[in-house]
Amino acid sequence: MTMRNETVTIAGAGLVGSLLALMLARQGYRVQVFERRPDMRSIAISAGRSINLALSTRGWKALAAAGIDDAIRAEAIPMKGRMIHSTAGELTFQPYGRENQAIYSVSRGGLNMTLMDQAEALPNVSFHFRHRCLDADLETAAATFLNEGSGKTHQVRADYLIGADGAFSAVRGRMQFMDRFDYSQSYLAHGYKELLIPAAPDGGWLIDKNALHIWPRGQFMLIALPNPDGSFTCTLFFPFEGDPSFASIDSSESLQRFFRQTFPDALALMPSLNDDYFRNPTSSLVTVRCSPWVANDKVALIGDAAHAIVPFYGQGMNAGFEDCSVLLDCLAEHEHRWADALEAYQGLRIDNANAIADLALRNFVEMRDLVADPHFLLRKKIEKKINLLYPNTFLPVYSIVSFSHLPYGQALQESRLQDKFLVELMNIPDIEQAVDSPAFEERIRTMIKEYEPAAASA
Amino acid sequence: MTMRNETVTIAGAGLVGSLLALMLARQGYRVQVFERRPDMRSIAISAGRSINLALSTRGWKALAAAGIDDAIRAEAIPMKGRMIHSTAGELTFQPYGRENQAIYSVSRGGLNMTLMDQAEALPNVSFHFRHRCLDADLETAAATFLNEGSGKTHQVRADYLIGADGAFSAVRGRMQFMDRFDYSQSYLAHGYKELLIPAAPDGGWLIDKNALHIWPRGQFMLIALPNPDGSFTCTLFFPFEGDPSFASIDSSESLQRFFRQTFPDALALMPSLNDDYFRNPTSSLVTVRCSPWVANDKVALIGDAAHAIVPFYGQGMNAGFEDCSVLLDCLAEHEHRWADALEAYQGLRIDNANAIADLALRNFVEMRDLVADPHFLLRKKIEKKINLLYPNTFLPVYSIVSFSHLPYGQALQESRLQDKFLVELMNIPDIEQAVDSPAFEERIRTMIKEYEPAAASA
Repeated sequence: MTMRNETVTIAGAGLVGSLLALMLARQGYRVQVFERRPDMRSIAISAGRSINLALSTRGWKALAAAGIDDAIRAEAIPMKGRMIHSTAGELTFQPYGRENQAIYSVSRGGLNMTLMDQAEALPNVSFHFRHRCLDADLETAAATFLNEGSGKTHQVRADYLIGADGAFSAVRGRMQFMDRFDYSQSYLAHGYKELLIPAAPDGGWLIDKNALHIWPRGQFMLIALPNPDGSFTCTLFFPFEGDPSFASIDSSESLQRFFRQTFPDALALMPSLNDDYFRNPTSSLVTVRCSPWVANDKVALIGDAAHAIVPFYGQGMNAGFEDCSVLLDCLAEHEHRWADALEAYQGLRIDNANAIADLALRNFVEMRDLVADPHFLLRKKIEKKINLLYPNTFLPVYSIVSFSHLPYGQALQESRLQDKFLVELMNIPDIEQAVDSPAFEERIRTMIKEYEPAAASA
Repeated sequence: MTMRNETVTIAGAGLVGSLLALMLARQGYRVQVFERRPDMRSIAISAGRSINLALSTRGWKALAAAGIDDAIRAEAIPMKGRMIHSTAGELTFQPYGRENQAIYSVSRGGLNMTLMDQAEALPNVSFHFRHRCLDADLETAAATFLNEGSGKTHQVRADYLIGADGAFSAVRGRMQFMDRFDYSQSYLAHGYKELLIPAAPDGGWLIDKNALHIWPRGQFMLIALPNPDGSFTCTLFFPFEGDPSFASIDSSESLQRFFRQTFPDALALMPSLNDDYFRNPTSSLVTVRCSPWVANDKVALIGDAAHAIVPFYGQGMNAGFEDCSVLLDCLAEHEHRWADALEAYQGLRIDNANAIADLALRNFVEMRDLVADPHFLLRKKIEKKINLLYPNTFLPVYSIVSFSHLPYGQALQESRLQDKFLVELMNIPDIEQAVDSPAFEERIRTMIKEYEPAAASA
């Protein structure tokens, strides 16, 4: 590895900041990473975020480029599809893709620590914890940090400053005052709370280990992802207000009654429900969009700092990791001329980040409705039929997002085209009966000739 | 006037902050106003904003409630309609409303100084200039200001804190970090620059004094509002980039050539064009939306701090003044219980602020297209015909916004309904000929029976 003279400051040692530090250091840059929280490798801290995450193809690619995919794979649990739990406790399995395709449940903390260990092992990376970013000089890329241990403030000069400091990014906070900086933060009326299904007495898993479990209930839902220790981390996505909501379920009695009526099979597996529900925080769900992501050819945003999205497509981390891959590709492409590379990076990423933000918002409705709406299920059935008949024309949007490297923008375009296509088919009289007729297949055959998929036309 | 014990801090002594100070002081509150800029009554300063503004019905109501409408009216210049200037120099006058209806050109500085003078004359109001708001404690309503004269920082405690500190509000900046605070700032690709048509040698007006002049040119436009001294303040709304744009018109030669080709009659009246264009700043145009406007029953946003809008409906100041009227009405309604009054205030205002923001964005396209598009002009002609035939059903949207106190939300709804109505009529074959036929009027008569105006149903 050739050492370079240029220095980079990264604000934030979360998943994206740590991965980017590793990648840039491998390219020979001298990298300093500053993190507001203590070092999670020495002090057990709650990241204030979900405990496990779904890693999919885009994420794996970045981990492979950083050379740590094998280390992560050893602990990752493949989830081959959704396991839908009805109120009566019936299970339906829906594969995510083809036989060998899966998304992977990984521990946020474990992955983050691995990334930090790998980066810190390099001679040209240093991590500084309990350093809060107070200010960023967008002209010079100098950043000011408060050392919360010593109480001292100091300015860190570098050639480049990358804000990987999350949805409430301090670096982006400075950029917000630039003229013509477009910005929005938008919250859902739903929040979330983490709950637990513990391991079986023998250390095994009480429900199918190789699935993402969903209890869809229309206006809200419960999901569960497997952990290596046999437990499942469950997340209840629930309205803040109304009935039922976090506001209305406010006693042990109402909690037990609600779960008994709504999630009876899950309740039977959740001995600590009461403690979890009343002790764990209720967190909000925000979508952040902004433009530009780059200031003065030397300051840039990445990951949640640039595009916080809701978790319903499991793409928050994957999108952030893909940012890292693209930024490194742009640096290579432009022979490490940062001005050009950063311009190319934001040109490639901003629209795609907005697209996955939209897809994630749409997928919340889809996940909640999985069981509840027969009309929706019929639509899904037809969609699947067309996917099977025309696998190269009518690509499943989920597969584009989770199992390909096609731009998110194409997935969004495809999903809009398929919506129109499906609406036309669903308008066929007596569609419930017609769907299995040869005439229906003929109709699809005719329509598909007119269909111009977004992915293929790109 | 009964003095009250409660104290109010207002951040910002612009138009809305000064009016609100006057109104609250009249109600007996002890009011302190802190303003970042020097006192414009002693030092000539550029407000960084337009020199004159169009005052319409909503604004007048608030000034009347504050008892200063007569003082302002003496200097205000009625503009009874738009005077459209074609490239060839032809003039077309379009009245804004009925014979006695007009919007009024007033001086931003003059109005602001009158409001400050009136407020400061009361014993329970004080103004503090060159005080920059550094921080706001949303729990206690305490605000921290830096006195830029002395360099000292001090905290101001009060029962209530109102952020009237404009589009880049520091108070709102604090609220942005509240959980579940929705916020967006969005810039147009157009900017603006102020130019000048001076007074005639005899002190009179070189073009019609009682009109708002518009040179609409499709992708951009020039407008002019009269001043009492005989001059007109012109504003060029122009793309930042592209051709033509602020970026492409970058020399005296290209400026003269562009104006000669595009605004020849205006050019003949603008001897200082060159100096004005190259000396005056190019400003950007932002729309700011947020929700909520109130924190902890004691901190609230008002005016541009709550809803910065683009200037194309002439409603920025009017909307801010209406905020003041509504807030005072809410205080009266709830017998000065602020928690209830503030809740009612934001309930009444947020959707309406979003509506006028949308209407202002739509009106930019309308103003730019006034001459250029024959299809648009035909539509306008039909619209006017229906307005005349059914003045109480098919209210002109411009009149709802500018000459009524109906909520902006109703104006937006009405404009959408009328859009649909007009699209249907415009789809009649050979509409250019059909429009003057008795059959066309009959068609309107049939359609209008089905038409349910937003305003009437409210």
